[in-house]
Amino acid sequence: MRAMQHFASDNYAGICPEAAAAFAAANAGHAPAYGEDDWTRRVSDRLRALFDTDCDVYFVFNGTAANSLALAALCQSYHSVVCHELAHVETDECGGPEFFSNGSKLLPARGGNGKLTPAAVLELISRRSDVHYPKPRVVTLTQSTEVGTVYQPYEVAAISACAREHGLRVHMDGARFANAVAALGVAPADITWRAGVDVLCFGGTKMGLPVGEAVVFFDRTLSEDFAYRCKQAGQLASKMRFLSAPWLGILEGEVWLKHARHANAMAQRLAAGVQQVPGAKLLFPVEANGVFCELPEHVLTGLRERGWRFYTFIGAGGARFMCGWDTLPDSVDALLADLRALSA
Amino acid sequence: MRAMQHFASDNYAGICPEAAAAFAAANAGHAPAYGEDDWTRRVSDRLRALFDTDCDVYFVFNGTAANSLALAALCQSYHSVVCHELAHVETDECGGPEFFSNGSKLLPARGGNGKLTPAAVLELISRRSDVHYPKPRVVTLTQSTEVGTVYQPYEVAAISACAREHGLRVHMDGARFANAVAALGVAPADITWRAGVDVLCFGGTKMGLPVGEAVVFFDRTLSEDFAYRCKQAGQLASKMRFLSAPWLGILEGEVWLKHARHANAMAQRLAAGVQQVPGAKLLFPVEANGVFCELPEHVLTGLRERGWRFYTFIGAGGARFMCGWDTLPDSVDALLADLRALSA
Amino acid sequence: MRAMQHFASDNYAGICPEAAAAFAAANAGHAPAYGEDDWTRRVSDRLRALFDTDCDVYFVFNGTAANSLALAALCQSYHSVVCHELAHVETDECGGPEFFSNGSKLLPARGGNGKLTPAAVLELISRRSDVHYPKPRVVTLTQSTEVGTVYQPYEVAAISACAREHGLRVHMDGARFANAVAALGVAPADITWRAGVDVLCFGGTKMGLPVGEAVVFFDRTLSEDFAYRCKQAGQLASKMRFLSAPWLGILEGEVWLKHARHANAMAQRLAAGVQQVPGAKLLFPVEANGVFCELPEHVLTGLRERGWRFYTFIGAGGARFMCGWDTLPDSVDALLADLRALSA
Amino acid sequence: MRAMQHFASDNYAGICPEAAAAFAAANAGHAPAYGEDDWTRRVSDRLRALFDTDCDVYFVFNGTAANSLALAALCQSYHSVVCHELAHVETDECGGPEFFSNGSKLLPARGGNGKLTPAAVLELISRRSDVHYPKPRVVTLTQSTEVGTVYQPYEVAAISACAREHGLRVHMDGARFANAVAALGVAPADITWRAGVDVLCFGGTKMGLPVGEAVVFFDRTLSEDFAYRCKQAGQLASKMRFLSAPWLGILEGEVWLKHARHANAMAQRLAAGVQQVPGAKLLFPVEANGVFCELPEHVLTGLRERGWRFYTFIGAGGARFMCGWDTLPDSVDALLADLRALSA
Repeated sequence: MRAMQHFASDNYAGICPEAAAAFAAANAGHAPAYGEDDWTRRVSDRLRALFDTDCDVYFVFNGTAANSLALAALCQSYHSVVCHELAHVETDECGGPEFFSNGSKLLPARGGNGKLTPAAVLELISRRSDVHYPKPRVVTLTQSTEVGTVYQPYEVAAISACAREHGLRVHMDGARFANAVAALGVAPADITWRAGVDVLCFGGTKMGLPVGEAVVFFDRTLSEDFAYRCKQAGQLASKMRFLSAPWLGILEGEVWLKHARHANAMAQRLAAGVQQVPGAKLLFPVEANGVFCELPEHVLTGLRERGWRFYTFIGAGGARFMCGWDTLPDSVDALLADLRALSA
Repeated sequence: MRAMQHFASDNYAGICPEAAAAFAAANAGHAPAYGEDDWTRRVSDRLRALFDTDCDVYFVFNGTAANSLALAALCQSYHSVVCHELAHVETDECGGPEFFSNGSKLLPARGGNGKLTPAAVLELISRRSDVHYPKPRVVTLTQSTEVGTVYQPYEVAAISACAREHGLRVHMDGARFANAVAALGVAPADITWRAGVDVLCFGGTKMGLPVGEAVVFFDRTLSEDFAYRCKQAGQLASKMRFLSAPWLGILEGEVWLKHARHANAMAQRLAAGVQQVPGAKLLFPVEANGVFCELPEHVLTGLRERGWRFYTFIGAGGARFMCGWDTLPDSVDALLADLRALSA
Repeated sequence: MRAMQHFASDNYAGICPEAAAAFAAANAGHAPAYGEDDWTRRVSDRLRALFDTDCDVYFVFNGTAANSLALAALCQSYHSVVCHELAHVETDECGGPEFFSNGSKLLPARGGNGKLTPAAVLELISRRSDVHYPKPRVVTLTQSTEVGTVYQPYEVAAISACAREHGLRVHMDGARFANAVAALGVAPADITWRAGVDVLCFGGTKMGLPVGEAVVFFDRTLSEDFAYRCKQAGQLASKMRFLSAPWLGILEGEVWLKHARHANAMAQRLAAGVQQVPGAKLLFPVEANGVFCELPEHVLTGLRERGWRFYTFIGAGGARFMCGWDTLPDSVDALLADLRALSA
Repeated sequence: MRAMQHFASDNYAGICPEAAAAFAAANAGHAPAYGEDDWTRRVSDRLRALFDTDCDVYFVFNGTAANSLALAALCQSYHSVVCHELAHVETDECGGPEFFSNGSKLLPARGGNGKLTPAAVLELISRRSDVHYPKPRVVTLTQSTEVGTVYQPYEVAAISACAREHGLRVHMDGARFANAVAALGVAPADITWRAGVDVLCFGGTKMGLPVGEAVVFFDRTLSEDFAYRCKQAGQLASKMRFLSAPWLGILEGEVWLKHARHANAMAQRLAAGVQQVPGAKLLFPVEANGVFCELPEHVLTGLRERGWRFYTFIGAGGARFMCGWDTLPDSVDALLADLRALSA
């Protein structure tokens, strides 16, 4: 019998074959530590090519660190960061951004479908201008969002323009950046630096890597001494090649996009099925790899009894089903079958 | 032609076969994230068995984080940590301990062969007792030390006794703990909790893992909420199984000790050879896997010209040659041959 | 012509005569620094008598520091603090609590009349229990509140009981504690430790002192090493006597309560008058020394044109008029006259 | 009988009459809070005139805060600060600079007579240039030094030149700046910005103020958002006029210099006497207001038994006798008489 797949998180998945192969290939002989190796150099160049610009690239261990370090590089402790109220930095990093920045405050804004708007940003940053309240310094966007939606390039650009006009920098949490690029069918540059993003945290783990994210500075003046920041904060890998090499595996031949498209397609398949289930209701447009839906309590209980794992506290309530690079159509169909059976 | 091996650091080595196999085995299907998986549970139990006590175990990404988080758990910001002046926390973590603890001060002590003594500790902690100077709260030992020596069990116990008598906790930086255990031929418990150590940072990377260290709390009252601390500080791996599973590979059948004994033996082979080289002088007793020696400037230059990589700024000067789990006798002999040729 | 009094803040007032006299008296000859002087000892004892318990007392420079240091003593960086959404720690300390605690998150709760309730606290602390969100550790109450209301002893006790049941500590921001005691007519102990408060920040500046607040630990286990914390954070006064002595001036003969009663009475006088002004509406019950009211825009503008200073952004909107120990009935009447004239 | 004067610290002295008068004068009616008052504006202008340049001025509560905030404004957490090993920031601020900067490391240098030299600075900052060690970013000088000596303008300029050449900023701890200016007979500008100092912490408390120091930024690009930094760190006084007004009292008519000259003269008187005492030995040139001398143990004990208070652990050992603005010749003579009697 095949082991069950889960929809709890795209990080329940393992390592994709292409990343695994690159990882194994990197394990040959000696290599200089701390990122002075060839693998890291090659991947960095590859990312610069991908983004079509001479950006600065750093590899760190996870998303909490990537986001927190990037924000700390943009902020002093008395600054504040405008984020969506459902943003991961606000809801799921246990105060990581506040810790790394030594106290920068997050200012949560509301917004439909998990997205910030220029108006919401503006409202927050113009509310106060006295020293008794932290000075707004950064806007952070999550692309794709925590509720499975995607910012259009013009939406990112509009928020960036508003930010820049008021002296704020723009950070993008791209834990699921691949899914957004796959969904939009645009060049990565078009929803990052060309749309005004200063720094992107490009998620690797959810794309099929074992560990690690890339912090990509499009404005290189912001990454001054960032290597020191990483080192001090326990985010400089000694055997860096094992963080960087797997990226090569998925960047070659657009494997990362292939996987992201697949995950998105599985989410569409699931969403289509959910819409046929009586009593089930999609909570957000399904644009990337997550499906959020309202389900009766007995259905939620029943799914759990049948062994399915998923979260209900993330985002705006409801049940969250995440699809990954490895989600099988059969798994989606099995979940749908159980959903239908329980809802009958 | 075989690629050259280096003696710059034991982290230039790749992943040992046993760890690589366990890593690959862990990549099967879905597994709960953030350490809720079976691999992590099994390794934790395995470590408890190894240490023969019901300790608390956490896996973090690297040594800077392991040491800094452990010290932060023992200290408040206004406390201080007694360390040897050559300790890694003082010389090579870019202020990591100060960052994680929000300002705890390191108090460097001198001591022969890279080792602290009760007298040196006592001198430092009794110098001041006013609020204008940070209050000593922890003694940290490095086992094996930064200069390749090893604390005997009675030496650890004597320092611990001194610490405890004055209300201080004892932390052990065990980035090369395996080499010390291999050198001493004792049970791991005998140079840790039975000798008064409260928390050990057990190095995995230098033992042949791709990434990750274990923080082992022998006094479990000290690890209260440590999971939160790890999460906030960006040290909770989502796909934790890839950090934990490789430990299984090396803990099974005492593979870790086998590798450590090999590295130590290679250091002995190198040391024995160095002693035959005119003009070369061993700086410290060679008790673990590192060889420090004074060499004439033209020899250092010559070695570098021939492609050897090694450090000269670490520890108390001189050239440092580190042996790893994979160091080949041939590599040692080739290095010695070059040494002899250059010294002739 | 007499200089105009303002209603912008009770800290626009100067030093009350009794505090000024004690300050001057303290300026005689040499005295040991850093709190080792007789004045500081006497005031500490006097505060212990006032609170009828053997509490630990520390004097710091201002309210931001008092609250932030006290919270930092109760929290680790990965903990959180439940506060009212209008609490000063959340809205007017520029991220001070986050800075001093190195990242503790404030969890703002709603509640009528600026007050927390056990239900609101419970809702916040039971929302999450995973390591991805900071662990609730403290409830902070403001007495009297930011909107001029006062917690009854049973209200404080109910919140404390709820907090304690869930392993949380209770902190009271008493920047205007005197006004609350005066309003309630209770013993200070009755709304602090007897009602479950662990630590009180007792405001001095707004009571008529030049500078300084007292941090009063009723649970002395929580103040371990607090002197070090103050010193490191730049809150240990060298000439401490000038912070402590003025307290003697106002503690003698219950001068502090006399002043607080006066300020409260002036607020009542103002509130009574406001209720007669057409178009003006009191926003909160006037229980201490602040009056919040909704006024038409042209009235606000008119008042400012006539030279009155007051805030409109504090609390829940509306105009805030604060009365102090020195507010003259004539000033209140002059303000009311202008209010009436502008509203006519 | 007259109360005894002490030589333990210049902060055992009270408030000088001129500061006390200004303090009392400031206590008239209402004034805007948080530094928006006229007193603060006037003093700031007065300080700009004194330094003959358009500097930025901030008033904070004490020296620990002044130094720590200024250094935090110049550093990120992964930077380091070169200081003399006897500097107050290193030895007597309980890790304040590390706390405010969230981990910046102090690099202590040796140097005769408590003074740094360009060579000592250079040695420290050129020792390492890898990311495993904090990057040097600031040199801090103490003027006058912790051992009662004074940097000549050319000495300050030489260190500044060396710092600037290597990308470092220059901070001056001026807790006893007045004594240095008085000793040198130069314009304040000549040993600050004209000699390359970027920011000065100008001590007020030891000059006869009740509380407070001024942070003076000569390079105004460094003080961007410094008001936020002060606020967040609990260093923005609400009744600011009581911190600032006393400065007016001592700046008028060069009262501050008069007092400093007097304190220096008392130190000379004491030093002259000490040199006549058999067995007593001056440890450093007496150039400001402190006298350090080696005394036999029985003399130290005898002085303490006769009621004298002084420190023996500060600086490089020996007994420290500090003279203040109010030290009486009679007190000096009484101390000398006891010294002679005990040494006979």
